[in-house]
Amino acid sequence: MNLTGQLLIGQNEVVAAGAAVWAVNPATGEKLEPAYHGGGHEEVEQACKLAESASVAFRSTSLEDRATFLETIAAEIEAIGEPLVERCMLETGLPKARIEGERGRTCGQLRLFASVVRAGEWLDVRLESAMPERQPLPRVDLRQQNIALGPVAVFGASNFPLAFSVAGGDTASAFAAGCPVVVKAHSAHPGTSELVGRAVQAAVAKCTLPEGVFSLLYGSGTLLGQALVADSRIKAVGFTGSRHGGVALMKIAQSRPQPIPVYAEMSSINPVFLLPQALDSRATSLAEGFIGSLSMGAGQFCTNPGLILAVRGDALDRFLATAKQTIVNVAPQTMLTEGIHQAYANGVEALAGNDNVTLQGYGEAGSQPNACQTGLFSTTANQFLADESLGDEVFGACSLVVECDDLEQMRLVATQLEGQLTATLQMDDEDLEVAQTFLPILEEKAGRVMVNGWPTGVEVCHAMVHGGPFPATSDARSSSVGSSAIQRFLRPVCYQNLPQALLPEALRDTNPENLSRLMDGKRVVTV
Amino acid sequence: MNLTGQLLIGQNEVVAAGAAVWAVNPATGEKLEPAYHGGGHEEVEQACKLAESASVAFRSTSLEDRATFLETIAAEIEAIGEPLVERCMLETGLPKARIEGERGRTCGQLRLFASVVRAGEWLDVRLESAMPERQPLPRVDLRQQNIALGPVAVFGASNFPLAFSVAGGDTASAFAAGCPVVVKAHSAHPGTSELVGRAVQAAVAKCTLPEGVFSLLYGSGTLLGQALVADSRIKAVGFTGSRHGGVALMKIAQSRPQPIPVYAEMSSINPVFLLPQALDSRATSLAEGFIGSLSMGAGQFCTNPGLILAVRGDALDRFLATAKQTIVNVAPQTMLTEGIHQAYANGVEALAGNDNVTLQGYGEAGSQPNACQTGLFSTTANQFLADESLGDEVFGACSLVVECDDLEQMRLVATQLEGQLTATLQMDDEDLEVAQTFLPILEEKAGRVMVNGWPTGVEVCHAMVHGGPFPATSDARSSSVGSSAIQRFLRPVCYQNLPQALLPEALRDTNPENLSRLMDGKRVVTV
Repeated sequence: MNLTGQLLIGQNEVVAAGAAVWAVNPATGEKLEPAYHGGGHEEVEQACKLAESASVAFRSTSLEDRATFLETIAAEIEAIGEPLVERCMLETGLPKARIEGERGRTCGQLRLFASVVRAGEWLDVRLESAMPERQPLPRVDLRQQNIALGPVAVFGASNFPLAFSVAGGDTASAFAAGCPVVVKAHSAHPGTSELVGRAVQAAVAKCTLPEGVFSLLYGSGTLLGQALVADSRIKAVGFTGSRHGGVALMKIAQSRPQPIPVYAEMSSINPVFLLPQALDSRATSLAEGFIGSLSMGAGQFCTNPGLILAVRGDALDRFLATAKQTIVNVAPQTMLTEGIHQAYANGVEALAGNDNVTLQGYGEAGSQPNACQTGLFSTTANQFLADESLGDEVFGACSLVVECDDLEQMRLVATQLEGQLTATLQMDDEDLEVAQTFLPILEEKAGRVMVNGWPTGVEVCHAMVHGGPFPATSDARSSSVGSSAIQRFLRPVCYQNLPQALLPEALRDTNPENLSRLMDGKRVVTV
Repeated sequence: MNLTGQLLIGQNEVVAAGAAVWAVNPATGEKLEPAYHGGGHEEVEQACKLAESASVAFRSTSLEDRATFLETIAAEIEAIGEPLVERCMLETGLPKARIEGERGRTCGQLRLFASVVRAGEWLDVRLESAMPERQPLPRVDLRQQNIALGPVAVFGASNFPLAFSVAGGDTASAFAAGCPVVVKAHSAHPGTSELVGRAVQAAVAKCTLPEGVFSLLYGSGTLLGQALVADSRIKAVGFTGSRHGGVALMKIAQSRPQPIPVYAEMSSINPVFLLPQALDSRATSLAEGFIGSLSMGAGQFCTNPGLILAVRGDALDRFLATAKQTIVNVAPQTMLTEGIHQAYANGVEALAGNDNVTLQGYGEAGSQPNACQTGLFSTTANQFLADESLGDEVFGACSLVVECDDLEQMRLVATQLEGQLTATLQMDDEDLEVAQTFLPILEEKAGRVMVNGWPTGVEVCHAMVHGGPFPATSDARSSSVGSSAIQRFLRPVCYQNLPQALLPEALRDTNPENLSRLMDGKRVVTV
């Protein structure tokens, strides 16, 4: 498939007039053809108008048709074959196995949402039978289901060029909910975006859906991105990126005449608490596991372990000694973009230059462009509590060990943390009582609490929560990974006293889709 | 029970130093003792500190204990007996039967939430079994449940002194979710608030819960109310009131270092569409039903039918003729406060003075203070579309009939409306096809779509949605009435690989509370 650099607006290919951007191979600095000209207000207008016109028809599709659409997208992405993997490698510097794995995850995610759509739990069907004889007032017939919010703007993420980009989790869950999607492609991987965008465009046509169900735009965040969020036809936003970018979109969304929800996944340092017995009995293996999780993929994960907390003493010294031994052998990996590499280098430099921070060790320095040199630092809990900047995310393979005087101080640091995507306890059986004192704190700080693992690696399933209190996300009530991500794009509607012929199918007495329903408050499952 | 005018902060009675406010009998203008001195930053600090300290213990109570607490509140409110009804009548001007009915609704609501807590559907328990043998990577054990957001600020509403005030729907649903509550009492009914507040305070003590579970504050909205929403320990806000007030709280909540959700139920004109056959066959009874709904309780309901839409012609003329005949006999009713009456009078005056609006009729004028004179006006669809102010809510018994050229124009008006709590179709069987063209529009405009009823009267049940797109509410994804209101105060947490002893009870293998659970995406109900 030849890349054209065109915007995809419905079934049309549009040449935009804005500034040209080229993808850059971060491993070589080489400019990759073609040029991608950014769109502006006109392209936002076209895409939003089409999306709005498709909105009712798309949300009215049957569960089966919508599920088939999601499966068709997955098949179309797979059908691109090697050219997708090759282009994505060039644009991101990520290794082949990672890209192939991420493609599998992306297509698996689309198929998971197909199964979610068919199961229909997301409709949250509730029926309340009429009670015409009730005193003093009769009860009318009341039924509830969730419906799609309307067109959704999705911002592709830099660090998951497939799984959180054009047809990633935000798009899949919005489609599953019945929302048309307008994607703003991330400028770091426009070719990957175009290939996947054409796959989605083809799936829309194959499934004979209205073309406005999907559009793909290129352009600057401050021009095109902000115009998209400000457009009155957009009803929700999905975003994965920096805290700065996410907060900017939140402000625009809130200052619209009709405010809309923004689901921004932004910033997390993913604290890991090494409890005393676990640290004492497993200092070496914990240190090795830690450095492995820290350096994987140049640390370019939202769930990278950026903060380690432990009580100072011999066991922590052994942990640090092994960590230092291990880190020096970590090979440099190419980061996704020059901008990300520069921000990483600045973050590491700030830590290295902070008088209250001690360097523990660096990984190998790379000679190639944009190489990530893993970095490990330490500080005391007192210093950490006194200097807010030490809690800021350094996106990449950098972590800070906080040495605490005792468990009481470690809990104090926990209570002072900002919201996180994850919080981890490393514990042995003997740590159970201590763990029980940490759990209530961590539940309030993070969307996912884990034991004896490392936070990198996010399972796409029904019980996953990839979310958490601000600034981890803009909305702690949501998850951007897993089947509950669909709930972000829904709202409930109650139907009072509607004749059967006017009722949405899911609410009819006959329950043609065999949905699980809450009948007078009691869960009823069909067999 | 003697009223004291004291703030209730946990189990303490606090005399505040702020300006004194007295309740006023709106029917007589008489000042009612005692004085209520407003609190300020100090009282907010005390209440929030206590609420935070109670937060973990309260959300960790068993389902049974929390349900019992809700039932105890209901019993304590009932135990106040006649003094509550009498004081509430004095403060609101509402008739005895209405207050008694509202007390029944309030206690029924608390007991409904007790049953909701016990049923446990709100926990949304999801389990994903571990797959240690899975290739290429094993799957870890993942479990999810909802937990309480933390302390909630509740603003009492003027128009439901019991059902949406101190122990009303917001408080009941927040308690059900496991959130401590700090109430800012509405200044129009401080004595009613104190009586109910003491009932809640007694229930906290009887159930041996931490005292911070509940506090009741008096004070000004701009001082105490805003300080409460800005306090970092408050994690969500429930509000029922004006658009102006709700939007102000939204802005404060969004500009906090950690933004929080605000559930504000604000403004709705509840359009009613008279479809052609129904209007033709039932013009007289529709007009009578309409005036009944419009004038009930001086129109002081969020769901008052403030907008009627129909195609002009003989049938609409007959509807208007009957409406005019009926309205002149509507007796004046005392409005809740002087402020509400003044705003109502201003709104009616603005309509009466608008050259593009025609007066259809007034009800009886009252001679007593703050009497509501029902008002009915009409305009054309063209004028309505040209003058945004005609879509503003006039809180009280005032409504506007919009005459449309044809159904096409009626649909156009529908698409131009702001978000609403309700939208109603009056239809006969022959109107089905027309109704089908309206339904997708109304679903996107309102939280509740109804047929052949009137929007006043909101059933408290599982399938109710009392919500809708902005400006009806601040968050279209929520309902402030009915069991799903609990979902506003929850967020999901995922527990990865926790030992059974550390897992919250609801997530343990043994399922001790017999909860319905989503197992690997499939709904499993215990018997």
